[in-house]
Amino acid sequence: MKYNYKMIIQYDGTRYDGWQKQGTTENTIQGKLENVLSRILEEEIKIHGSGRTDTGVHAYGQVANFHTEKTEYKGEPLETALKKLLEEYLPQDIRVPVVKRAGERFHSRLNARSKKYIYYIDNREILNPFQRKYSYHCPDILDITRMKEGAEFLIGEHDFAPFSSVKKTKKSTVRTIYHIEIKEENQEIQIEIHGNGFLYHMVRIITGTLIEIGKGNFLPEDITNILEKKDKSYAGPMAPAHGLFLKEVEY
Amino acid sequence: MKYNYKMIIQYDGTRYDGWQKQGTTENTIQGKLENVLSRILEEEIKIHGSGRTDTGVHAYGQVANFHTEKTEYKGEPLETALKKLLEEYLPQDIRVPVVKRAGERFHSRLNARSKKYIYYIDNREILNPFQRKYSYHCPDILDITRMKEGAEFLIGEHDFAPFSSVKKTKKSTVRTIYHIEIKEENQEIQIEIHGNGFLYHMVRIITGTLIEIGKGNFLPEDITNILEKKDKSYAGPMAPAHGLFLKEVEY
Repeated sequence: MKYNYKMIIQYDGTRYDGWQKQGTTENTIQGKLENVLSRILEEEIKIHGSGRTDTGVHAYGQVANFHTEKTEYKGEPLETALKKLLEEYLPQDIRVPVVKRAGERFHSRLNARSKKYIYYIDNREILNPFQRKYSYHCPDILDITRMKEGAEFLIGEHDFAPFSSVKKTKKSTVRTIYHIEIKEENQEIQIEIHGNGFLYHMVRIITGTLIEIGKGNFLPEDITNILEKKDKSYAGPMAPAHGLFLKEVEY
Repeated sequence: MKYNYKMIIQYDGTRYDGWQKQGTTENTIQGKLENVLSRILEEEIKIHGSGRTDTGVHAYGQVANFHTEKTEYKGEPLETALKKLLEEYLPQDIRVPVVKRAGERFHSRLNARSKKYIYYIDNREILNPFQRKYSYHCPDILDITRMKEGAEFLIGEHDFAPFSSVKKTKKSTVRTIYHIEIKEENQEIQIEIHGNGFLYHMVRIITGTLIEIGKGNFLPEDITNILEKKDKSYAGPMAPAHGLFLKEVEY
């Protein structure tokens, strides 16, 4: 019988080609985890992530699961042993704070009900060197109130294709955004987006569009236009990967 | 006539051999700054820092000053021009948020009245990958109350030689610590130390000793013993460089 294990994974995406690159698992987070797990468990382990993250994107709470027949390692329960072994064998920029047995039918991607992402903007005139890999330095004056107004137009169920890099496809591009929270403290802006699912590049294009609104290049109500026209050429540019964190996956 | 300019400098010390290495300025923060300033101003610039920081130590607010006859650069006031040029030519892990004219007699080291340092400890069981270069991962249980009790014994004027790597010297090793604040939030511990001056390795050895108290290996009152015996073999080990930040220099 195969048992199902769920992991929560944190990673600094700076050095990696994303969670999983199409065609190859070289230098990806998934690839590193599969290698180390396969070595420890002495069998080929395939993990299922809750979804991909782009090259350079970080995660506080990526979720993945895998199956194995083993329940212990050298007499120790597998969860406890794995936590220590993964800490030892993974590079320091990939950490697994949680490993636990999951229900037989649990699947990280298929069972995900919603996700939260956070995008960080360093709004200081001179960049904060300690955040340079974890936030996008945008020294322009940004009108947070207008950004919040713009964000309101995104809430709810919409066809988000114009806010994505998805090619025309038969798959639905309708998603629901539950909440967007924009906060500013010490010239650092956080945009937290909670939704039932996200299309390819969607958080980064939404962020790029909100930044254009903040700069005064777009009006908050332009969001409605972009959604109605279903034309991505009206959306803002894609914000860079290194400001983005997958915060949490909810089941 | 030479004018005096004061800079506030932030740096991520990870890649550097400290502020100034004895004998060489290769790969030091001071060396990088002097190179870039000399190129911009087309004369040899020598800067005076408020003090050295060790290899790997970071700074939120290092202070340095230099002299030049110039007051403008291509028609722009030198302070404004330099801020932009330094942003452009320095590596992203060294930033200069403030450049301003200082009084003729201002000297960053000689006029420093006091300094604040912060030491960060990541007390999570599994290290926070985003803080791995900016805090010391110590997953042991630390008794913060006892660490605070220990810190109290350090306050005031003492001969801090046993808490330093200073060789026997004729120079005074007496310093005054005004305040030590220890805070914990989300399993991250901050130790902020404010004093009129610090000996070589002093903050790191004090931190290492407080950590030993936190672990229960030393008693808070052992601090008094170490100070009285003036014997550094009784102090705790030196905490690693990468958790330490020079926060502020006061004049």
